[in-house]
Amino acid sequence: MPEFSIDARLLGNSLPVADLTLSAVLLVRDANYPWLILVPRRAGLADIIDLASADRTELMAEIATASEALRATVRCDKLNVAALGNMVRQLHVHVVARTSDDAAWPRPVWGVVSPKEYPPGAAEALAAEIRKRLV
Amino acid sequence: MPEFSIDARLLGNSLPVADLTLSAVLLVRDANYPWLILVPRRAGLADIIDLASADRTELMAEIATASEALRATVRCDKLNVAALGNMVRQLHVHVVARTSDDAAWPRPVWGVVSPKEYPPGAAEALAAEIRKRLV
Repeated sequence: MPEFSIDARLLGNSLPVADLTLSAVLLVRDANYPWLILVPRRAGLADIIDLASADRTELMAEIATASEALRATVRCDKLNVAALGNMVRQLHVHVVARTSDDAAWPRPVWGVVSPKEYPPGAAEALAAEIRKRLV
Repeated sequence: MPEFSIDARLLGNSLPVADLTLSAVLLVRDANYPWLILVPRRAGLADIIDLASADRTELMAEIATASEALRATVRCDKLNVAALGNMVRQLHVHVVARTSDDAAWPRPVWGVVSPKEYPPGAAEALAAEIRKRLV
């Protein structure tokens, strides 16, 4: 069995929020949108259907937990939930809080506008607030 | 309770494939990518977390079923699974078979290239093949 580790490209533009039963939760460093990524801690997987059935059910529960935590923390008109993986093949799920006046609305968030830096300390503060609601 | 019906914009560019326990399955009329949409037959919902917990688990099982059916029917290097809903607010989940030489790769499929017409009868034939693997 290969050992699990989070892809460097996911780690490189995010900060850790919490570890759920199955998934590591990351906050993407892009102030345009409150944006979480769930990475199931299973090595070598690319697609949701690569997960065992019980893990898929757990992943859905964790998507709901992350969604509720985001919605309780930030303004959110619509949640975007997506497992794409065309760029970073490791299985990961985006959970993004969208508002009808955000930088990419109504388009998806990927590749539309350049990431915007959070003010110093703001990403860490947001991650801490979300963490309280996750664990 | 409002009655369930599928949004006219989803119906307008798709054809019906099958009815699963929870979701209606549609095939999008875009020959660029084999592209299914699952629409849970529950009225008035926008986000996955609007579903009851048991329905969320069923939705995940149906995402897996649709994914397996797609992968068994067409070439597929990567599955893209997404619930966005920024344009059509009714809860629906995209399940798209991507290949590394498709029209939008490696970008997401939404809004990148114009839909391409299937040759006459081809969409119906593909829907029939997928249906056999779904039911």
